Amino acid sequence: MRLQMNAAELMGYLEEVFPQVHGDFAVDALEAEQIVMRLKVQEKHLRPGGTVSGPSMFGLADCAAYAMILSRIGRQALAVTTSSSMDFMRKPAAGADLIGSCRLLKLGRALAVCDILLHSEGQDGAVARATMTYSIPPKRGD
Amino acid sequence: MRLQMNAAELMGYLEEVFPQVHGDFAVDALEAEQIVMRLKVQEKHLRPGGTVSGPSMFGLADCAAYAMILSRIGRQALAVTTSSSMDFMRKPAAGADLIGSCRLLKLGRALAVCDILLHSEGQDGAVARATMTYSIPPKRGD
Amino acid sequence: MRLQMNAAELMGYLEEVFPQVHGDFAVDALEAEQIVMRLKVQEKHLRPGGTVSGPSMFGLADCAAYAMILSRIGRQALAVTTSSSMDFMRKPAAGADLIGSCRLLKLGRALAVCDILLHSEGQDGAVARATMTYSIPPKRGD
Amino acid sequence: MRLQMNAAELMGYLEEVFPQVHGDFAVDALEAEQIVMRLKVQEKHLRPGGTVSGPSMFGLADCAAYAMILSRIGRQALAVTTSSSMDFMRKPAAGADLIGSCRLLKLGRALAVCDILLHSEGQDGAVARATMTYSIPPKRGD
Repeated sequence: MRLQMNAAELMGYLEEVFPQVHGDFAVDALEAEQIVMRLKVQEKHLRPGGTVSGPSMFGLADCAAYAMILSRIGRQALAVTTSSSMDFMRKPAAGADLIGSCRLLKLGRALAVCDILLHSEGQDGAVARATMTYSIPPKRGD
Repeated sequence: MRLQMNAAELMGYLEEVFPQVHGDFAVDALEAEQIVMRLKVQEKHLRPGGTVSGPSMFGLADCAAYAMILSRIGRQALAVTTSSSMDFMRKPAAGADLIGSCRLLKLGRALAVCDILLHSEGQDGAVARATMTYSIPPKRGD
Repeated sequence: MRLQMNAAELMGYLEEVFPQVHGDFAVDALEAEQIVMRLKVQEKHLRPGGTVSGPSMFGLADCAAYAMILSRIGRQALAVTTSSSMDFMRKPAAGADLIGSCRLLKLGRALAVCDILLHSEGQDGAVARATMTYSIPPKRGD
Repeated sequence: MRLQMNAAELMGYLEEVFPQVHGDFAVDALEAEQIVMRLKVQEKHLRPGGTVSGPSMFGLADCAAYAMILSRIGRQALAVTTSSSMDFMRKPAAGADLIGSCRLLKLGRALAVCDILLHSEGQDGAVARATMTYSIPPKRGD
């Protein structure tokens, strides 16, 4: 039940293994069973009308789950998403960051499950919910 | 943001519209945005080995969401499930009731979304999570 | 890419490991990457109004996926459902069996994925679709 | 059961309402109940190691479903995704386009459901499957 990395170490590792996401994401808070991750919304994340696109919301949910899992299992970049489900409930606010609040529901030897609520910063009501299931590669020697 | 029925009225209405479920379910707690529903686990709900079956877990999650929504919109039996997702995370305990803790994430004019965590009574760690989306029929005169 | 059991052997094994389902399900067709399974709809599977209940639809989809996977990996009753998603699209016909047409999309060492379309016999248009993900236990000696 | 736009009209309309996607997607084939859509994979769609990113796969599945639905209901840009589920099954090939084969499972007055299989061009075995549910806005006068 112990974090293997703190928020700063985690961000450093994410930027090392996912250089493309540099500048897109930040860790707002990290605990043993939850993480709050922020999508710094920019022009490239938007749909016409100014709302955040579906793929950007998927990306935030997936990144929050990945970061949550890595913070617990340590530097194992090869954890991969196997299943996801999302429900889109409200229109994201224009001009606001998107906040993903992620809970770790299961961390098994082979599979981990997280659920994530997405909010527009400063707005009531979740814009979306997601579940992400990750497969964790066996450690050498297992 | 108001309940249209309290827990006793809700159970009475459920037993009227779903006579088959009589004796299977009970409302443990009801608030404006959450409900706790219990599956009184019996022989018919079990798989070999004594664990609760997948269809029984689905049934509890679906009934909790239905009850949550009816408690808010009133006697509209025709609300129907349109989508569901579930993740099965731990083996339910043998000989324990299953408790479904349901949150109402969205209650729109046409669609409602609930998520549900399922626990075996007296056991740590959720056995499953579910999301249920319901379609709400338009009121006459709409 | 070879079946380990034919349809009759598969039904015999299912009835041995799931005695409760005896009389509920039948294998209509079995090939290397698909199975057609039938729910012999009875009073206990119905909702008021005569339509097949959600848990019964879930049960058919889950059983079809389980049977598909066992037909390929052989007698390994411990394969367990890890994730499912379902969409409910039309009302099942009253008084008709429900037919589940299941495709095996992936059969890996640790995870298998099936999707399933459910039809009421003799009716056009799927009543539901489902995806079932199974975790396959490592073989002894792995 | 009639298309309201052919493939060229559909691409023209998509580029008008989603200018950001210009150059990313193409319609390979369009029929009354299915569409094949291509993601022209570029540097921005990739993860380290050269595989297509999760958000890019989500984007292709979502765009294929949106295009399928618009081809049937006509120019109604306001159709919105309400639910999605995805399973990620194989690693997409490096340096190959991603092909989304989409089936329209339901087109109701208020909701439409599509499922999508994603393949890397020239590679056997689906890399992912997805279901997308869309809410269709009521027509004026409804």
